[in-house]
Amino acid sequence: MIGRLNHVAVAVDDLEAATAKYRDLLGAVVSDPENHPEHGVTVVFIELENTKIELLAPFGDNSPIASFLAKRGGGIHHLCYEVDSIKNAVEHLRINGCRTLGDGEPKVGAHGKPVVFLHPGEFNGTLIELEEL
Amino acid sequence: MIGRLNHVAVAVDDLEAATAKYRDLLGAVVSDPENHPEHGVTVVFIELENTKIELLAPFGDNSPIASFLAKRGGGIHHLCYEVDSIKNAVEHLRINGCRTLGDGEPKVGAHGKPVVFLHPGEFNGTLIELEEL
Repeated sequence: MIGRLNHVAVAVDDLEAATAKYRDLLGAVVSDPENHPEHGVTVVFIELENTKIELLAPFGDNSPIASFLAKRGGGIHHLCYEVDSIKNAVEHLRINGCRTLGDGEPKVGAHGKPVVFLHPGEFNGTLIELEEL
Repeated sequence: MIGRLNHVAVAVDDLEAATAKYRDLLGAVVSDPENHPEHGVTVVFIELENTKIELLAPFGDNSPIASFLAKRGGGIHHLCYEVDSIKNAVEHLRINGCRTLGDGEPKVGAHGKPVVFLHPGEFNGTLIELEEL
């Protein structure tokens, strides 16, 4: 069912400093920051040869990243796997009793594509996002 | 400097259950478990189209994964990026004041290749492994 690892999301409190580390220490290609007010995040993409890292910093009030940072500090926030059909994926997960976050209905994610998040309790504490290609 | 994301390592306490979730819930291709006594881990590879996930469970006494699980529970343990030359990478990091784990000298990693681990304090709590191709 799952295809490529679309991205690894990392929560950071200082986006400029985190971006500089990837650019200057690791020599990676980094994007300009993008604000996504509807998701409460500012994102910088670290472009790797085979996938990308998304540095996420809080944007605005009630950012989900702000509460993550307050609770756990910076660190890896989630892994995103691509699926051909989010509808089929959700149906398969539901039949197999896999918990999702929220009501389990696909939402429009930060890339403008349908996504669903699986409950981290299902995967050893790892938050997993499924994104339709 | 960094090239591909070689793998994402996830610490788990029940390797069989974690493998079954990836195989049955997510439909992923999974390997048989491999014991690496010299690193204190048993590994299952989740083969994705563009990279892999490595599920790590403790093997033997004094496993580094056992102490991670005891402290934090299961979850993402580290990200591994490929580099062309570990010697050049370490030299570049040293010049730029980036802390590494241990004495900073490359060691032979679980894939039989030279690796070095960067201090998680340098990267917002993310433990990063660099591996020479």
